[in-house]
Amino acid sequence: MPDISARAPRLFVDFPLAEGATVPLDKAQANYIGNVLRLGAGADVLVFNGREGEWHAKVIAGRRRPEELSVVARLRPQPAPGDLHYLFAPLKHARLDYMVQKAVEMGASAIRPVITRHTQVSRVNIERMRANAIEAAEQCGILTLPEIGEEQPLAAAVAALGPDRLLVFCDEAAPVADPLAALSAARRGPLAVLIGPEGGFSEEERTFLKRRDNVLVLSLGPRILRADTAAVAALALVQATLGDWVPGA
Amino acid sequence: MPDISARAPRLFVDFPLAEGATVPLDKAQANYIGNVLRLGAGADVLVFNGREGEWHAKVIAGRRRPEELSVVARLRPQPAPGDLHYLFAPLKHARLDYMVQKAVEMGASAIRPVITRHTQVSRVNIERMRANAIEAAEQCGILTLPEIGEEQPLAAAVAALGPDRLLVFCDEAAPVADPLAALSAARRGPLAVLIGPEGGFSEEERTFLKRRDNVLVLSLGPRILRADTAAVAALALVQATLGDWVPGA
Repeated sequence: MPDISARAPRLFVDFPLAEGATVPLDKAQANYIGNVLRLGAGADVLVFNGREGEWHAKVIAGRRRPEELSVVARLRPQPAPGDLHYLFAPLKHARLDYMVQKAVEMGASAIRPVITRHTQVSRVNIERMRANAIEAAEQCGILTLPEIGEEQPLAAAVAALGPDRLLVFCDEAAPVADPLAALSAARRGPLAVLIGPEGGFSEEERTFLKRRDNVLVLSLGPRILRADTAAVAALALVQATLGDWVPGA
Repeated sequence: MPDISARAPRLFVDFPLAEGATVPLDKAQANYIGNVLRLGAGADVLVFNGREGEWHAKVIAGRRRPEELSVVARLRPQPAPGDLHYLFAPLKHARLDYMVQKAVEMGASAIRPVITRHTQVSRVNIERMRANAIEAAEQCGILTLPEIGEEQPLAAAVAALGPDRLLVFCDEAAPVADPLAALSAARRGPLAVLIGPEGGFSEEERTFLKRRDNVLVLSLGPRILRADTAAVAALALVQATLGDWVPGA
């Protein structure tokens, strides 16, 4: 039903999905469906729960506004999950929201804020990050939500990757070097991409990162990129060489 | 003088730069230097005019606040200009600002808004685009400002590229296909990247674009990307294969 997919609102619901199931809307969703979109009983909605694919559902009439959906049929199966961790020094407010949304669009399977020497933020709001991840998934038709971790110091976050996960370290102090040659030579397997804070990594941190066994230092060209730009650029290069932008990879 | 480069404010000034030259600050710059940063006579500033590299300058005392700079010495020569046109369907307000900033960071040499069937904006504010380009260049240490064009209908914008410029057409309706294989097979030369509106291109537009002689249809993976994300991703792939992210290219 491609016509439904093109125009119906898409909602994340944290409930089992099956034909004939009834799914409650939370307050914000009920308001969005009933008051913002002014949809009533029988209107088409797309729902996903991050585990069971995308489903067609219909609005059920509520007392004052819609409060429930009736699940009709599955439209898309759950895609195979990616395995790409995204580690980044958190930014403030709107730019953090933006970073999380972009990471979801680019297919990150886990999002991990990392506190570095020059990071300007010491605590992050996990619930807000999660809300941003859901919003991006809803808007972009993504059916898998990334796992979102608490902030960790850099050393702990790198240790938690385990030795087998290739760490792609985007080092703005590295000399300009062919990024695709570096990525193409890497062995396929679990991946992590690390983007530093606006002030860059400290010398100590760079030494620590480059000393890791399974590390790839990536150059992102001759211009200094803002952290959110570097994130999308690095994830694009990684997805296009080692990730799910390559058919059959 | 790397210590100056790391901490001094960087300003675009549209005046000739040479040792001993005096350069006036406009009102906004004078306010920024004098009132926001509270810098007085003798403070270090970096200046560039888009043509003659980056220069070290010093603030000259003004009556109430600094109004002029004295140019001291050249710190960086003007880099060779890139040749990468960026064509995009304009977005609204803040997202247009953002698009322009990202294009500058990614090294676009010309920025051209293109009106397509599903474009939601019919007029763009060239002065505002220019201000955003300057801001991005100032913040990211970029010494070349892109040329910014008036909005044009798609057919006219494509015709204006000339036949020799390869058009990289980011088509979200294209099947997922190895984007780097496609780019690596292209001949090096002048480039243009085209990003469509959020609603995608119409069938007619897609046919028109694919019929062009010198066109490369690029797939940006299995997920639908927002226009600003697609822009950074596509420019990263193009710069990393055919552009200035490859040393000696």
